Amino acid sequence: MSNFEAPGATNSGATRVVACDMAFRVSEPTEVVVQVVASKSAGDIDDSRFEVLTDGGAPSSLVELSTSVGETMHIIRSDPGRLTVSYRARIRSGARGSQDRQPDESGVALDRQVYLRPSRYCPSDHLIGFAVAEFGAGPEVGPRIAAIDEWIQQRVGYVPGSSTVHDSAEDTLLTGMGTCRDFAHLGIALCRATGVPARFAAVYAPGLSPMDFHAVFEAFQDGRWCVYDPTGLAPRSSLVRIVTGRDAADSAFAAVISGIADLEHLEVTAIAEPVLPTDEPSQTVVLG
Amino acid sequence: MSNFEAPGATNSGATRVVACDMAFRVSEPTEVVVQVVASKSAGDIDDSRFEVLTDGGAPSSLVELSTSVGETMHIIRSDPGRLTVSYRARIRSGARGSQDRQPDESGVALDRQVYLRPSRYCPSDHLIGFAVAEFGAGPEVGPRIAAIDEWIQQRVGYVPGSSTVHDSAEDTLLTGMGTCRDFAHLGIALCRATGVPARFAAVYAPGLSPMDFHAVFEAFQDGRWCVYDPTGLAPRSSLVRIVTGRDAADSAFAAVISGIADLEHLEVTAIAEPVLPTDEPSQTVVLG
Amino acid sequence: MSNFEAPGATNSGATRVVACDMAFRVSEPTEVVVQVVASKSAGDIDDSRFEVLTDGGAPSSLVELSTSVGETMHIIRSDPGRLTVSYRARIRSGARGSQDRQPDESGVALDRQVYLRPSRYCPSDHLIGFAVAEFGAGPEVGPRIAAIDEWIQQRVGYVPGSSTVHDSAEDTLLTGMGTCRDFAHLGIALCRATGVPARFAAVYAPGLSPMDFHAVFEAFQDGRWCVYDPTGLAPRSSLVRIVTGRDAADSAFAAVISGIADLEHLEVTAIAEPVLPTDEPSQTVVLG
Amino acid sequence: MSNFEAPGATNSGATRVVACDMAFRVSEPTEVVVQVVASKSAGDIDDSRFEVLTDGGAPSSLVELSTSVGETMHIIRSDPGRLTVSYRARIRSGARGSQDRQPDESGVALDRQVYLRPSRYCPSDHLIGFAVAEFGAGPEVGPRIAAIDEWIQQRVGYVPGSSTVHDSAEDTLLTGMGTCRDFAHLGIALCRATGVPARFAAVYAPGLSPMDFHAVFEAFQDGRWCVYDPTGLAPRSSLVRIVTGRDAADSAFAAVISGIADLEHLEVTAIAEPVLPTDEPSQTVVLG
Repeated sequence: MSNFEAPGATNSGATRVVACDMAFRVSEPTEVVVQVVASKSAGDIDDSRFEVLTDGGAPSSLVELSTSVGETMHIIRSDPGRLTVSYRARIRSGARGSQDRQPDESGVALDRQVYLRPSRYCPSDHLIGFAVAEFGAGPEVGPRIAAIDEWIQQRVGYVPGSSTVHDSAEDTLLTGMGTCRDFAHLGIALCRATGVPARFAAVYAPGLSPMDFHAVFEAFQDGRWCVYDPTGLAPRSSLVRIVTGRDAADSAFAAVISGIADLEHLEVTAIAEPVLPTDEPSQTVVLG
Repeated sequence: MSNFEAPGATNSGATRVVACDMAFRVSEPTEVVVQVVASKSAGDIDDSRFEVLTDGGAPSSLVELSTSVGETMHIIRSDPGRLTVSYRARIRSGARGSQDRQPDESGVALDRQVYLRPSRYCPSDHLIGFAVAEFGAGPEVGPRIAAIDEWIQQRVGYVPGSSTVHDSAEDTLLTGMGTCRDFAHLGIALCRATGVPARFAAVYAPGLSPMDFHAVFEAFQDGRWCVYDPTGLAPRSSLVRIVTGRDAADSAFAAVISGIADLEHLEVTAIAEPVLPTDEPSQTVVLG
Repeated sequence: MSNFEAPGATNSGATRVVACDMAFRVSEPTEVVVQVVASKSAGDIDDSRFEVLTDGGAPSSLVELSTSVGETMHIIRSDPGRLTVSYRARIRSGARGSQDRQPDESGVALDRQVYLRPSRYCPSDHLIGFAVAEFGAGPEVGPRIAAIDEWIQQRVGYVPGSSTVHDSAEDTLLTGMGTCRDFAHLGIALCRATGVPARFAAVYAPGLSPMDFHAVFEAFQDGRWCVYDPTGLAPRSSLVRIVTGRDAADSAFAAVISGIADLEHLEVTAIAEPVLPTDEPSQTVVLG
Repeated sequence: MSNFEAPGATNSGATRVVACDMAFRVSEPTEVVVQVVASKSAGDIDDSRFEVLTDGGAPSSLVELSTSVGETMHIIRSDPGRLTVSYRARIRSGARGSQDRQPDESGVALDRQVYLRPSRYCPSDHLIGFAVAEFGAGPEVGPRIAAIDEWIQQRVGYVPGSSTVHDSAEDTLLTGMGTCRDFAHLGIALCRATGVPARFAAVYAPGLSPMDFHAVFEAFQDGRWCVYDPTGLAPRSSLVRIVTGRDAADSAFAAVISGIADLEHLEVTAIAEPVLPTDEPSQTVVLG
């Protein structure tokens, strides 16, 4: 097994243009949490623009929070009206700005523990029996993660509308159907159940069709978080991280915390320049 | 695949002696439903004795109900006191008394439909994706049932105390642990999910150790209900059917319907005479 | 509490005209089980017509099975083509033809036990704690069933599309949303958990809007099965029973057993003549 | 509603002595993660001692990790043998050492979002319907949290052995039984489902009988995290925080990450000096 990336495989040289436009019909004063901004770990970000308007004016309040790993959350309070959120940015990967955002050794050790734990949609504690019987639990994790990725590709059908927001990795395993979120959840659950830390990443995905937000999973392997996408719907090396978490519960692009706001419009854009790379399945990819 | 039984493989010539003694501490007037009597389909029954006592006297009421296939249910009402239920019988298989109890063609057709449906502990509708991907769903069902039986033997550990009365076949599949009831539920769920009618049988099992009530499953194959026991804990040909149903919900040996009654003592006996047969795994066995 | 029906409340004098037209696109030889014919218990049935055609000709095979309580199942095998199923009937209630179809005393006793058991979508064993704390478990069951019916009306929203075919009564209780099937499942589960036998009835429902198949539940009370409809969408006294069972697993109007058949058209008709009655919520209604 | 604590209600002046002794039989080289050390937020800690030994000598490795809020995790690698972990400390609350450990405003805002999210054992997204119908979802959260706490006290029975490590808040709600962990999970799930951030705290609990580790929940109210214990088994003001998290998945006192280690001995000590306070249910308590 020689699936290590060639030097620079981490999307060096690529530029991605990403954008998101959302509109909500707010009918009662509302608090909405939005996570759409590219992670600072994704590369050098140029020309970034994030704008929130209620009926064309400033919303009641807008708070921007940043996490220690460079991810951004916006907490918006809005009175009734048409609430629009508009974001776009250009990300250059070459400079490897991501290196500055890496957690230190202690942070990595804590992350390993956190991402071994079962979570809302990845109840890994409950399927250890199945996972270990199917994939083993030995110390060499690379082949195991690859086997899990392959199993999901072979066994789970990508069927839009086949799952609900309440479904867990167990539902996906049993029904054999789901969408990107479900594929990621199952990968995470099977990894954790066999002793491999794994986490969820919400991303912009150049090449995805139809274009939308996308979800993949990362497994801890040889000291790094390597990205896997069992849907195979977009090349991993041009993905742009938005937010990282235990599962989809941590990474909603928009969550209505209180009040009433209906999403009426969503448009996602993700373009790789100058050209969309191809994904070499046997290659390990690290996401910035 | 030539796994049909030799002529007379249906436990001809064997005699089984079965018994069950239960005692409840009734602290409030109670209704208890008991299913411990051997099915009339099991063979010619001699020396059968069934006795219920409350503090050594007659209980408030005792009703015996028989189903159209020769199974028996006792509905006992008892005032507070020590309620004892005692049953024993000798069953000779040779005479094939079971033949009289077979449902007619229409009954068989109805049974096939009923036992394809998902049930409380066998939610086969939810795991079709997994089951079909793992075992297929073609018209030749014999090899498929054998593969399911084998898979459960290989993948599920028999671990007393590892499951609860609320667990379903999905829990068993995912945790990889259970007891006889769970093994049967998983076999049933996987069969139904791949288009094979399957049902649950509560049985006396000569050779089981430690002795207790036992549970197996039957799958509809070549026009007959063939019995499978993925636990492999007792030879199939000397099993004595008590009650048949969709799953364990239909076949509790004792269920407290109202009031308060605590089971304080349970002793099960099951002996094959003159000798315990061996189980030939490749042989199809039909349970009387 | 005086919620017994007035003499003749059992839809005497009413006539119902019911019909169902279905069309499937069969792309591989298929077996479909259809349950759309009015139960013989529903009344005197005139002018009944049931027709199955594949591309206008006879299907490969058509088997009609009747249960001991007068319910009908059709097992259809069809080659590829357009498979149509057409049924219509006129049912007069006055003659109380239903009386002949009642099970005998022993059958009633068995039914009481069967319909106390947990089932696929009504896992009553698991929510006993909640049910007994909320509704009690004493011997007077009428007020308890009424309280359960009322609670569902108050607490569960009728939201088309809010549930899936895999959802159980527990999902309905927790999410507070569902459709007629879910309302019935929750009623059944709460009744059984508090010691009241309860069952599912698929029915034609004059007055339902938009017209479709409908589902209600029946609880065993004062020696009879009384019908409840927490959706309140159609008067109970003009419902026409199709099939009775433990839950929706027993009563699908069409189930594809093997092959591939896609339902392309479904039209349900149910009319009460001469006039749609009103439902008096406090009145107990017994369904024929 | 005037349930604010009197000045100094935060266990000022109290001293707690806590200890934990564990022994594992390690039969294969193992990695165990231990969380038993009192949080630095709990007060001024004197005489703290934490010792790990394998067969009386140093384990293969011992790493201590601290979180940004002053909580401690030990990652132990041990060869086969008897692995013992021994901890004891004396915590004085008076000095309010806890103040230094409070997250800043941005950290509080992030925490509020994190602890609104559904988690492994608190799937709050799935029971919003029930929770909002039962408890409301208005802006005044204090009375709502109190109502949730009271509801759990009234409706859930404390029954050791009634739940498993896989059970979630939904199981607890439905079965009406559980232990401290389940009570906390249900409180958290109901709070989050009605819009109140809530989190899990593993604690030492002076006064608990039989003595063991304990679990409570904290809800965000009036700008602070207030502690609730629907089990009522120990006075809140003398609890000593060990670790805070989304649910029990974050706070295991010992988790075997790899290898085989069986817990053979566990002894927990927690004493309040000079005297155990009484818990005033109507008083809001903030845990250091």
